[in-house]
Amino acid sequence: MTSDHSAVTVIGLGSMGSALATALLDRGHPTTVWNRTARRAEALATRGARPAVTPGEAVTASPLIVACVLDYGALHGILEPVGGSLEGRTLVNLTSGSPEQARETAAWARSLGAGYLDGAIMTTPPGVGSPEMMFLYSGSPEVFEAHRPTLAALGDPVHLGADPGLASLYDAALLGLMWSALTGWLHGTALVGAEKTEATAFTPFAVRWLTAVGGFMTAYAPQVDAGLYPGDDATVDVQIAAVDHLVHAAAARGVDNALPELLKHTMERARAAGHGSDSYASVIEVLRNPEGGR
Amino acid sequence: MTSDHSAVTVIGLGSMGSALATALLDRGHPTTVWNRTARRAEALATRGARPAVTPGEAVTASPLIVACVLDYGALHGILEPVGGSLEGRTLVNLTSGSPEQARETAAWARSLGAGYLDGAIMTTPPGVGSPEMMFLYSGSPEVFEAHRPTLAALGDPVHLGADPGLASLYDAALLGLMWSALTGWLHGTALVGAEKTEATAFTPFAVRWLTAVGGFMTAYAPQVDAGLYPGDDATVDVQIAAVDHLVHAAAARGVDNALPELLKHTMERARAAGHGSDSYASVIEVLRNPEGGR
Ligand SMILES: NC(=O)c1ccc[n+]([C@@H]2O[C@H](COP(=O)([O-])OP(=O)(O)OC[C@H]3O[C@@H](n4cnc5c(N)ncnc54)[C@H](OP(=O)(O)O)[C@@H]3O)[C@@H](O)[C@H]2O)c1
Ligand SMILES: NC(=O)c1ccc[n+]([C@@H]2O[C@H](COP(=O)([O-])OP(=O)(O)OC[C@H]3O[C@@H](n4cnc5c(N)ncnc54)[C@H](OP(=O)(O)O)[C@@H]3O)[C@@H](O)[C@H]2O)c1
Repeated sequence: MTSDHSAVTVIGLGSMGSALATALLDRGHPTTVWNRTARRAEALATRGARPAVTPGEAVTASPLIVACVLDYGALHGILEPVGGSLEGRTLVNLTSGSPEQARETAAWARSLGAGYLDGAIMTTPPGVGSPEMMFLYSGSPEVFEAHRPTLAALGDPVHLGADPGLASLYDAALLGLMWSALTGWLHGTALVGAEKTEATAFTPFAVRWLTAVGGFMTAYAPQVDAGLYPGDDATVDVQIAAVDHLVHAAAARGVDNALPELLKHTMERARAAGHGSDSYASVIEVLRNPEGGR
Repeated sequence: MTSDHSAVTVIGLGSMGSALATALLDRGHPTTVWNRTARRAEALATRGARPAVTPGEAVTASPLIVACVLDYGALHGILEPVGGSLEGRTLVNLTSGSPEQARETAAWARSLGAGYLDGAIMTTPPGVGSPEMMFLYSGSPEVFEAHRPTLAALGDPVHLGADPGLASLYDAALLGLMWSALTGWLHGTALVGAEKTEATAFTPFAVRWLTAVGGFMTAYAPQVDAGLYPGDDATVDVQIAAVDHLVHAAAARGVDNALPELLKHTMERARAAGHGSDSYASVIEVLRNPEGGR
C-alpha cells in the first residue's frame, strides 16, 4: 500500500486535479480519475488513467483518494453519498478551505473509519510534480508517514502537525504573503513602467531583492517571538520617511496609491503605539490589535 | 584615482554612513569622514578614518565624496556652502529621496563641474560590504565605470542608466515591494501565532514560499509587457475565492484585516474590469488606473 506504485484515485480534474493525476501517472501509479464533467478525464485516459463512472467506483478503486475540487461544498456533495465506501481508506483533501472546514471534514472522515489528511498546494499547476514545491499536510502523523512516498510524486510533502486545520491556516497565511508581494511588485512595476522601464527589465531586481527581504524576515522572526524589536538596522521612523517618497512618486505618475497609503498608515499606527525607534517587526503589534474592532 | 585604494570621503555617519565608512576602511581605502555631530566619528577614527573638522576640509580631502544623510535638505545644507570645492570631484549621493530631487541635485553638481551619481542602498547597515547586496546607481555611465572598483567595497554596484532619477525610482518601487511583503509576512505570522505557532517556526516556510512567489513574478513579467494575461495557471476568480478564507481566518482570530481586505478589493476591481479569467498579473491594469482619481 505504501510502495512506490500504489494505486491512487484523483477526484476533481480541474486545472489542479489534472496536474495531480498527471504527476501520479508520470511516476507510474495506477491512477483512477473522476470528474463531474466526464470529458475532462479524456486527455488523462489517453495517458493511462482509468476513468471511473461514479464517485463510488472511484473511491473503491484505490486505498488512497486525493480530492481537489473547487470548495468544501463540492467535496461533500461528491463524497457524502458514498461515505460508507471510505472505511479503511485514506482521503487526502487538497481542496482549499478554512481551518474550521478542515477540522469538520477530518471529524467526518474519522466517524466513517477513514484516514484523513488535509493539504495545501503551494504552487500553481505547472509546478506540480517538482520536488522544490511545498505541499503542506496536517492530520495524523501515522497516516502521513504511510503515504509520504506516494505524496512525494506531487511535490515536497511537509507535515505541519496533527491538528488537521494547520495546513489551511498556513495556506491562508502564505497566500496573504503572496498577494501582498505580488501586488507590491505590480505596483512597483507600474511605477517604473511610467518611465518606460519594461516589467521584464525591472523584475530580475525585484526577484533578487526578495532574497534580501527574506533575510530581513529571518532576522526579525526572533524579535517577534521575544516581543522586543531593537531598531538598530532600520527604524519605523526611517521607513515612514521613505514611504513618503513612494507615495509622492506614485501620485506624480498617476499610479494607484491605496497600497502604499495603507502601508504608511500601518507604520504610523506602530509609531503611535511607541515603536518609532523599533524595527519594522514591531508592526505585528498593531496587526494583532485591529483598528476600530474590524 | 580608480585604483583599489583610492581616497574616499564619507559625509554623514548615522547607522548607514558609519557602515559605509567601515566597509571602505576594511578594503584599505584612505577614508576621511565628517558628521554634523562630531563624536560619531570617534569609533571610526580608532579604525583608521581621518575625521575632517569642516565639510570643506572633508570635500577637498578626496576625489570621491560619498554622502549619506537623512534627506536632501540635510545634504544641501552641508554641501551648498562648499559647492565650489566640488569642481573636478565626484559626488556619490546615497541619501534617500525622490527621482525629482536626484535630478535637481545632478543638475546642481553639473553646474559646479562635478561628477554625480545618485544611489540607492538595497540593504540595511549590517549588509553593507557584502557582495550579494545591491547598490543601485544612476547617472553618467563614465563616472560609474571610473568609480566602480571603489563602489564595489560597499556591495554589488549596479548601473541602471544615465537618468539620475532611476535609482530613486527603483528604490521606491523595491521598498514598496519590501513593505508589502514584510506586512504580509507579519500578518501571516500573527494569524498562525493566534494558534500558538512561533514566528521562528513559520518564517522558514514564508522564506521558502518567497522563492516560489519570485517564480510567479518571473512568469508574469512578460504578460505585463505584452498586456495579455492568460489565466491558465490560476485565475483572479480562483484567488478571490481563496482570499475569503484569509479574511475569515483573520477575523475569527482577531487579527487586523485591512491588508487582506485591500487585496480582495483590488482583485475585485480587476474582475470588474473583465479580468476574472486572467492571471493575477492583470491586477496591474487597475493599479495604473487609480480609483476616484486618487
Ligand atoms: N490553480 C491553482 O493554482 C491552485 C493552487 C492551489 C490550490 N488550488 C485549489 O485547488 C482547488 C481546485 O482548483 P482548480 O484551479 O483546479 O479549479 P478549476 O480548474 O476551476 O476546477 C474546479 C474543479 O472543481 C469541480 N467542481 C466545482 N464545483 C463542483 C460541484 N458542485 N460538484 C462537483 N465538482 C465540482 C470542477 O468540476 P467540473 O469540471 O465538472 O466543473 C473541477 O473539477 C481549489 O480549491 C483551489 O483553491 C488551486
Ligand atoms: N538604515 C537603513 O537601513 C537604510 C537603508 C537604505 C537607505 N538608508 C538611507 O540612508 C540615509 C541615512 O540613514 P541612516 O539609517 O544612517 O539614518 P540615521 O542613523 O538617522 O542618520 C542620519 C544622518 O543624517 C545626519 N543629519 C540629519 N539631519 C542633518 C542636518 N540637518 N544636517 C546635517 N546632518 C544631518 C545625521 O547627523 P547627526 O549625527 O548630527 O544627527 C546622521 O549622520 C537615509 O536617507 C536613509 O533613508 C538607510
